[in-house]
Amino acid sequence: MTDETPDHDNARHHEKMAKKKAARAKIMAGKTIEKGLLIVHTGKGKGKSTAAFGMVFRCVGHGMKSGVIQFVKGAWATGERTVLEKFPDLVTIKAMGEGFTWETQDRERDIAHSRAAWEEAKKMIADPDYKMVLLDELNIVLRYDYLPLEEVLEVLRNKPEGKHVVVTGRNAKDELIEVADLVTEMEQVKHPFRSGVKAQAGIEF
Amino acid sequence: MTDETPDHDNARHHEKMAKKKAARAKIMAGKTIEKGLLIVHTGKGKGKSTAAFGMVFRCVGHGMKSGVIQFVKGAWATGERTVLEKFPDLVTIKAMGEGFTWETQDRERDIAHSRAAWEEAKKMIADPDYKMVLLDELNIVLRYDYLPLEEVLEVLRNKPEGKHVVVTGRNAKDELIEVADLVTEMEQVKHPFRSGVKAQAGIEF
Repeated sequence: MTDETPDHDNARHHEKMAKKKAARAKIMAGKTIEKGLLIVHTGKGKGKSTAAFGMVFRCVGHGMKSGVIQFVKGAWATGERTVLEKFPDLVTIKAMGEGFTWETQDRERDIAHSRAAWEEAKKMIADPDYKMVLLDELNIVLRYDYLPLEEVLEVLRNKPEGKHVVVTGRNAKDELIEVADLVTEMEQVKHPFRSGVKAQAGIEF
Repeated sequence: MTDETPDHDNARHHEKMAKKKAARAKIMAGKTIEKGLLIVHTGKGKGKSTAAFGMVFRCVGHGMKSGVIQFVKGAWATGERTVLEKFPDLVTIKAMGEGFTWETQDRERDIAHSRAAWEEAKKMIADPDYKMVLLDELNIVLRYDYLPLEEVLEVLRNKPEGKHVVVTGRNAKDELIEVADLVTEMEQVKHPFRSGVKAQAGIEF
């Protein structure tokens, strides 16, 4: 998986790395814009919500206030939640959904919950106190057409400057990827569930 | 990006979702094994370390002790660190590296630091107090051959049962992927650095 061969000789290594450093410095010097980002974590692999909550923890570390809307209840690890709840001044968590759509089996109720969650999301996005808003598993809601895509995109396109919004969930809509600033696809290379291993504390929840 | 068409009619939706729930329950019932996992986060996209630290936060939430060895100093977000340091009984952090290899430009010193970090890592892996050990950016060290791959694999293959070990960094060695239980490749779909946006608090650090 290496894309260039590392150099084993110290002098050559030094020269090569000095060049790499200079190249990086030049690139970084061109990056001067600060702006609120629309970030999407999608794909079938693990880590979509975990990495998003990792950003919420980063915000906590910087004293920046974050809001979390959980569109699908039960999707979210209890371990992280326990820790985040220790910082009530910096993190607001709203668990709005009632479980995955294959758990509830009631499309009308899912739509009502999605609507309520989205109304809370819009308030947080508009509220200047929040530097980051995490819309956890919104992609699932959009994928089942529980909210009108265009309405959601409209809000995200016009979010206040400087506000970071993170959207997670597999099957991100192409139109969302189109408007996003940063999109990462978590791809599953190998998964232990295939060999009968169950979900475990610290890993899955 | 949808892989099946959602159903708009409530009755049909219910039936379809009930089937999906039953199928999932059957799959989950077969998953009974609890074991310590070797987890690898690789790829060029974002979220590799963030998701790994997210798992450390999960462990904190469950009262499980974690150890973190940071093989490359400066690679790690200060935001997360500030929060994790609030749980000294549950998280031990050892920052062993001195910066990316293109920053230090000194191969011999990088090798010495990698060796010292690895010795600490081995102690944590052997110590039954730690339920999870995060070897952050170990892939970079392996990629530059700063540690003998076979020596590292030997320890990972023979880690105590029940212990989770998480390895991050791009360019994971194929041999490591081979022994791992769970491998996720974070793939970069879209990145704002391309349009001149700089690294920002809460996002990159």
